[in-house]
Amino acid sequence: MKKILNSPQDFVRETVEGICLAYQGQVKMLNDDFRMLVRADNSRKKDKVGIVTAGGSGHLPVFLGYVGEGLLDGCAIGDVFASPSASKMADLIRACDSGKGVLCLYGNYGGDKMNFAMATEEVEFDDIKTSSVLVTDDIASSEDFAKRRGVAGMVYAFKIAGAAAELGYSLEEVATITKKALENIRTMGVALSPCIVPTVGEPTFTVDEGKMEIGMGIHGEAGIEIADIMKADDLAQLIFTKIDRELHLKSEDKISVLVNGLGATPLEELFVLYRKLVELCKSKNVSCVLPHIGEYATSMEMAGCSITIFKLDDECLKLLEYPALSPFYTNNNLF
Amino acid sequence: MKKILNSPQDFVRETVEGICLAYQGQVKMLNDDFRMLVRADNSRKKDKVGIVTAGGSGHLPVFLGYVGEGLLDGCAIGDVFASPSASKMADLIRACDSGKGVLCLYGNYGGDKMNFAMATEEVEFDDIKTSSVLVTDDIASSEDFAKRRGVAGMVYAFKIAGAAAELGYSLEEVATITKKALENIRTMGVALSPCIVPTVGEPTFTVDEGKMEIGMGIHGEAGIEIADIMKADDLAQLIFTKIDRELHLKSEDKISVLVNGLGATPLEELFVLYRKLVELCKSKNVSCVLPHIGEYATSMEMAGCSITIFKLDDECLKLLEYPALSPFYTNNNLF
Repeated sequence: MKKILNSPQDFVRETVEGICLAYQGQVKMLNDDFRMLVRADNSRKKDKVGIVTAGGSGHLPVFLGYVGEGLLDGCAIGDVFASPSASKMADLIRACDSGKGVLCLYGNYGGDKMNFAMATEEVEFDDIKTSSVLVTDDIASSEDFAKRRGVAGMVYAFKIAGAAAELGYSLEEVATITKKALENIRTMGVALSPCIVPTVGEPTFTVDEGKMEIGMGIHGEAGIEIADIMKADDLAQLIFTKIDRELHLKSEDKISVLVNGLGATPLEELFVLYRKLVELCKSKNVSCVLPHIGEYATSMEMAGCSITIFKLDDECLKLLEYPALSPFYTNNNLF
Repeated sequence: MKKILNSPQDFVRETVEGICLAYQGQVKMLNDDFRMLVRADNSRKKDKVGIVTAGGSGHLPVFLGYVGEGLLDGCAIGDVFASPSASKMADLIRACDSGKGVLCLYGNYGGDKMNFAMATEEVEFDDIKTSSVLVTDDIASSEDFAKRRGVAGMVYAFKIAGAAAELGYSLEEVATITKKALENIRTMGVALSPCIVPTVGEPTFTVDEGKMEIGMGIHGEAGIEIADIMKADDLAQLIFTKIDRELHLKSEDKISVLVNGLGATPLEELFVLYRKLVELCKSKNVSCVLPHIGEYATSMEMAGCSITIFKLDDECLKLLEYPALSPFYTNNNLF
């Protein structure tokens, strides 16, 4: 196992400890179990809707990397590829409520759904209003929008919800705009090599030499097809076409593209893909603004990438442009 | 070859095209050969010393990723792991001179040295003053400081030189402070898996399962020892001790640590290392400020990491804190 760690059991805690040491001016733990991360200024109650998420570890910067100004207020942290518990989620919601309610914004995975359902029920007894929005952006995971998994598109969702909350939107309004954004966000990815869950110690699946798995999920969930590794331009075209079939991009539309590296894929390759995506957009007179290119939602050392397209209306563009700053995200270099 | 590209021959040009499309407000090419990147505002002559670098591709964000405000004014771009030509370097120097001279700041590699020597000689005929500072931070590459290779420590050198130039230092002063910074910067890395140069198509070296190569260079240059993969804490201790032997850290010293992923190593693992480094510093009453943790100088899909320690005096701390912004670097989230 080609990993730099101490023991698999301590991996998540030690990662989070390192993050808290590195960014102590920005984030902190709610208590010493290292399972709930909040903004360092959390105790100064803000007069705004709280935004929280939760999910398994192994996807940095997702999830906890987006706790910051104009983004998330808190994140509950699970083991690698495993949901955190409902009680941690409930404690987190309580800590992030300032009386205006809390949006629970997370990927459509069984464990997270079940635990957030319990957590939101639990905090009802404390008179905390919550609303839940599920991220279901992965078009390869199901034909049915509501059944899809949440992948890199959730970064855009965090950004939109976070900005809306900062701007004073009510809980209902934050939920509404986030859902509207998600209706215009689609992602598809490919995996070229597997990743290793530390406690397992070996790959949980394989991708043969010369092959890529189209549509594979960020935990190695089966994709829609195993294909020969194709040229970057063909891959960009394939994914763009599949996404466009749902977003129906037309002349003068504005989009933001997120080309996301899953872990082992060099940054260089992401820009080769972006170049082709801009060309495809130009041919439809669609303009690309605020590109996000890099590692935003990873699967540890998995090689591969995903492409997310976010079709923007004026409101979402304004929210995407709104300043945001976390240890792993800033948009001040995207203009 | 598990890469997402079109043809190996077009890889560098297409990468740079993508970068220019993504960050057109910030950077641009000097001409259409895609070999010289400058700041988008390059034509507005600034009244300051120019800072340029050059080097082979395959190390993003190094080198061209640091062209930006408070950092580099320009970068000449070579093929993967190959120096750009002297004539490109000379054209770049000319474009980045505002009459106050140009600092050529680059890693100690044969090709880059030879070509920069020719380029600086060439621009003398245009009455452009230049000064050259070589980055030699890799302690594993030689016992002799002057013979060492330049690796991730060059990011700190870019930052210091860029800030000094913005603050109005003269060419001689920029060179002097950059050299002084480099005397207090040391790096050591380990490789866990090889990388593949696109035109070669297969790994140029191997690292056996269960092994790591200590001190391996960012192009796969042989290290000092092949060892069993060790625990993160032991690795942090090993590198810290080797670097401390040269920097002689003492109580109340301030350092900045750069924990750099070489490509395939997950971000999570870098924070596990940082956690231990902070502990080691605490035991010596050394404080860690402005940590840089992430992928700063990569070797495409190589697994592994490097640790750089920068011992700061008041002047270097001020320069490290000075605002900087490029498509791949910002320090507004480090405080």
